[in-house]
Amino acid sequence: LARIADPERKTAIFDAAERLFSARGYHATSVRDIAAEIDRQGASLYAHVGGKEDILWGVVSRAADEFFAALAPILAADLPPVEKLRRAIAAHVRVVTSSPDAATVYLHEWQQLGPARRAAVRRRRDEYEGLLRGLIAAGVADGSFAPVDPKFAGLLVLSAVNGVYQWYRPGGALDPEQIAAHLTDLILNGLLPAGKDVRKECP
Amino acid sequence: LARIADPERKTAIFDAAERLFSARGYHATSVRDIAAEIDRQGASLYAHVGGKEDILWGVVSRAADEFFAALAPILAADLPPVEKLRRAIAAHVRVVTSSPDAATVYLHEWQQLGPARRAAVRRRRDEYEGLLRGLIAAGVADGSFAPVDPKFAGLLVLSAVNGVYQWYRPGGALDPEQIAAHLTDLILNGLLPAGKDVRKECP
Repeated sequence: LARIADPERKTAIFDAAERLFSARGYHATSVRDIAAEIDRQGASLYAHVGGKEDILWGVVSRAADEFFAALAPILAADLPPVEKLRRAIAAHVRVVTSSPDAATVYLHEWQQLGPARRAAVRRRRDEYEGLLRGLIAAGVADGSFAPVDPKFAGLLVLSAVNGVYQWYRPGGALDPEQIAAHLTDLILNGLLPAGKDVRKECP
Repeated sequence: LARIADPERKTAIFDAAERLFSARGYHATSVRDIAAEIDRQGASLYAHVGGKEDILWGVVSRAADEFFAALAPILAADLPPVEKLRRAIAAHVRVVTSSPDAATVYLHEWQQLGPARRAAVRRRRDEYEGLLRGLIAAGVADGSFAPVDPKFAGLLVLSAVNGVYQWYRPGGALDPEQIAAHLTDLILNGLLPAGKDVRKECP
């Protein structure tokens, strides 16, 4: 996509593609459809971006960048693990809710990429999951968290925050910060009340 | 799909469609592809099932039926809420892991159905979510669970068990029962150890 010199036009193409890929799916969307969304000729778009898979790759990469950009400063901060996890959940929920279309494309339509790019996306997803896992492992190590399996706990956190794109509707009863707070409370404290928690016996 | 008299042939068509819809997506799969999978002529398949959307509807409905069939006896049983939740999580994970392709089609490709059928799927998903929510609300009411928001807790549980289809690979390190046990432990007990749980102060 280096051939697109104008960053505004590039953003417009990705925005339009993101909406259409999310609503109809990658295969049901043509480059002509994307071009029509931004009042351009399909042929002219092709000349600029090379092909539909390049656009999907651009949209997916942009979404991945957003998730990493939101998480990186939290992990780098000098904060206890519980506070890092709280902020990581809020940051992820913010990315998902600010663009449910980007989340849909990143979480599902990426599978329509070719093998090499699919492998690259998988590596980035694994890397992101690894960062969450590391954060949880650090909390287990210093006693901030119970001795949970960091792998499973990381997958649970990821499932919870990614799942938001399935049911979130802008303008609903709760805003993204409240959703994040609810999820964080449940993930940290679980469903059981004091005394019934098998791992947390009171003295 | 009433026109398919032979249940075995119907199952074979749905199985083939499920694999292809999951791997390639609905739009990239033709009725001819499905027919080729089961060594039949595309035209003959068309004559039997009416069209590709009918096949998608059949696959999605079958998956929904499986989830309900697994959950219903658990809810009807005379068991405490914690035990029901434990079994509901295990049952859902069992359905997802026994057929990741069905889960993928049910959780994503259903959105390619026409508006009326999409609304019908949404109603069934809402109904299933409502059953989980009711189970959690019952546990909150009798003190088995902390005073959590049943809606959020239900969504968290659903996200956690549905998320399994994103990373589960048959033959991995943990079998479905162990995955369910890990998730249940995390969902019930949370990440925090005793004493640091803000909701669970020891007397």
